[in-house]
Amino acid sequence: MKKLNHRKGGKRPPPARQDGLATKRQLLESAGEIFAEQGYARATSKEICERANANIAAVNYHFGGKDGLYAAVLEEAHSRLVSLESMQAAAQSRIDPRMKLRMFIGRIVAEVAKTESAGWELRVLSREILSRSPLMAGLIQNQIAPKAKLLRSLIAEIMQLPVEDPAVSRSLINIMGPFLMLLITDRALQKQVAPKLDLDPQTLTDHMVTYALAGLEAVAKANR
Amino acid sequence: MKKLNHRKGGKRPPPARQDGLATKRQLLESAGEIFAEQGYARATSKEICERANANIAAVNYHFGGKDGLYAAVLEEAHSRLVSLESMQAAAQSRIDPRMKLRMFIGRIVAEVAKTESAGWELRVLSREILSRSPLMAGLIQNQIAPKAKLLRSLIAEIMQLPVEDPAVSRSLINIMGPFLMLLITDRALQKQVAPKLDLDPQTLTDHMVTYALAGLEAVAKANR
Repeated sequence: MKKLNHRKGGKRPPPARQDGLATKRQLLESAGEIFAEQGYARATSKEICERANANIAAVNYHFGGKDGLYAAVLEEAHSRLVSLESMQAAAQSRIDPRMKLRMFIGRIVAEVAKTESAGWELRVLSREILSRSPLMAGLIQNQIAPKAKLLRSLIAEIMQLPVEDPAVSRSLINIMGPFLMLLITDRALQKQVAPKLDLDPQTLTDHMVTYALAGLEAVAKANR
Repeated sequence: MKKLNHRKGGKRPPPARQDGLATKRQLLESAGEIFAEQGYARATSKEICERANANIAAVNYHFGGKDGLYAAVLEEAHSRLVSLESMQAAAQSRIDPRMKLRMFIGRIVAEVAKTESAGWELRVLSREILSRSPLMAGLIQNQIAPKAKLLRSLIAEIMQLPVEDPAVSRSLINIMGPFLMLLITDRALQKQVAPKLDLDPQTLTDHMVTYALAGLEAVAKANR
């Protein structure tokens, strides 16, 4: 029996107009949970609406259907990990690029530290990265690609190389790969691979920044 | 209609004893393909036996059932990526630890370069890393944990730190994370994130080794 948030008094009336935004948010949240649990194929709009206490027509009304809702869930999940707005604000500030990298890494480390009580966001994204549905296009275009572009600019600035240099692209993999690994593998597996791993946010941030800055400098030297 | 390798002449006789090893190998291969396509839950022993041209009893006979076959497929997949034997041989050789790291990284880079025409091995492992079934225990115990232990020893030797130092565990994540990212994400996504990524094996090996050695040295200095 699936967990449902039944309202007392049985069937609820169709959502009033002023509730539109709240309904949309609740649909995203319930859909995130259900897509994370069951995957895209097995999840149904009906179950999502039931959990969100929303009218069955609400998915079509707000998202144009299950596909649109799923695409919105993917973008919402990525946005909650690191928002494009916060990255753009950091990119435009005039602080040292090494300090910007530290702030960016600190932000991701904070997410890693949270994953013991992981929400649906990471599970939905992890599933999608592997299942590679056509519905990932919006996520890539609106979230992943612009964030990666900002990060490449930052890396290029630190390396003092043109942003088009292949060493810049490769270094992005060096910086993001460890976090992807920490985000998609569970703690039990991490303990087997790296038993002494200390995920204290401050320690992990210092480690990742020290490692990255030294790596970037060495690779930049070899490519200048 | 699924692809089946029908033998001419219809139903084949039960496998002769001298065919046992060949049947076992063929079952692993067919099971790897089918688990990669459908996931553990949806795959059936019946379909696997059909594709392997094996008697329906062969899965039970050789692997004790679908669970045992799946566990064997996971171990086989990991072993094909990097064999434990080759890592043990490298660990015991008396060459410089930095050179051992280069050899290890070169071996993984060769796998990364192949993934355009990826076999079932990576897809099965990627699925399992996310789905986290209890059947992963054998893979972890027999493949992942001993290989990770050898890699930690190597990292500790390069860093001149005790193998129990948390910085050694964290550095393993730095070294393996980028490869995990390259192995589980597809080329289209990689192009969006790192458009100039050059996966030429020699170039990528040089880059990864340079980055890793500089990172390890800087982190070691901060932790000694």
